[in-house]
Amino acid sequence: MYKFYYAPGTCALASHIALEEAGAAYKAERLDFKSHQQNSPDYLAINPKGRVPTLVTEQGVLTETPAILAFIAQTFPEAKLAPFDNAFRFAEVQAFTSYLCSTVHVAHAHKLRGYRWATEESSFADMKRMIPKTMASNFALIERDMIRGPWVMGETYTICDPYLFTIGLWLEGDGVDVSALPKVMAHRSRMLERPAVRKVVEEEK
Amino acid sequence: MYKFYYAPGTCALASHIALEEAGAAYKAERLDFKSHQQNSPDYLAINPKGRVPTLVTEQGVLTETPAILAFIAQTFPEAKLAPFDNAFRFAEVQAFTSYLCSTVHVAHAHKLRGYRWATEESSFADMKRMIPKTMASNFALIERDMIRGPWVMGETYTICDPYLFTIGLWLEGDGVDVSALPKVMAHRSRMLERPAVRKVVEEEK
Repeated sequence: MYKFYYAPGTCALASHIALEEAGAAYKAERLDFKSHQQNSPDYLAINPKGRVPTLVTEQGVLTETPAILAFIAQTFPEAKLAPFDNAFRFAEVQAFTSYLCSTVHVAHAHKLRGYRWATEESSFADMKRMIPKTMASNFALIERDMIRGPWVMGETYTICDPYLFTIGLWLEGDGVDVSALPKVMAHRSRMLERPAVRKVVEEEK
Repeated sequence: MYKFYYAPGTCALASHIALEEAGAAYKAERLDFKSHQQNSPDYLAINPKGRVPTLVTEQGVLTETPAILAFIAQTFPEAKLAPFDNAFRFAEVQAFTSYLCSTVHVAHAHKLRGYRWATEESSFADMKRMIPKTMASNFALIERDMIRGPWVMGETYTICDPYLFTIGLWLEGDGVDVSALPKVMAHRSRMLERPAVRKVVEEEK
């Protein structure tokens, strides 16, 4: 039985969905970011980064969305969430999850977490003004070059899908005109037809 | 025969070393970032992100360091660069490469590439002032919690090692007091004893 730490509205949703899709036995633990529970001594003893998601397994603790997603896929091969038997196809999956974590999620983080990289109020305001533009430009690349359809990698649903769905939920709040992203929005609708996705979305509310 | 695109001083060094360690057949193509060759139409046709590294294989193009590193490890199993046969151990490797790409590399990028997230000169200056602090804090976590020694994952050399070595080369230029990072610096020395590392470092000069 895994223990899975998440907070609503964060990227942890992707791993949460993947656990559900895989049929894993897990207990979800919700953290309250408003009271900074992620920086409590108890939580920092589990994940010194003070972030989510964290997956506690019998072998030890795992952090970082791309790592947790691939771990779930490899541990539950019958769910076929990543093509481990084909190094190139698996690398394509990983290139997509890497892009989401290192470029798209980071762009979004400049809206509320500018203090990670700057100190002045004027810099935070400047960063916030850029969000609609950077997020639109990152998602334009996803729309144009990355979504093969119906799922990110084509006919097969993979760990890329809950991750895209999760980050894509931030678009409207980030001021992006989603009408320019028909494939991304169709993908969101398709995701919301999946029982596992609906269950987790409901649970995180 | 792969074609591998890199630019000196970038994170592409990690994949370059991994190719060499794996004994892969590849041709290295150097891009000149000073003349913005990464944004030329020819290069954007290969990698629309306009970044390095890019690995061109017979099956298609791969981008993103964590994806390329894992691809090399999986394609050349005899080099034993990642523990693919153990989902948890492989996830630990991936958590480390994810942390480097999404947190540490991103922190560093705020020194010269603030234009990705802001527009004002005052914001760029603010970001630059934070670099020694953010890089020191990220590497303090690596020093304290992540390097098992002698290699990142313990007794076995993995794809984590060239990646840590590569990002670690930025520390002095980022104004970090490396005397507070004895394990990181010992790791660098250990890396420089490896023929593959020396060969690639020399080639990228």
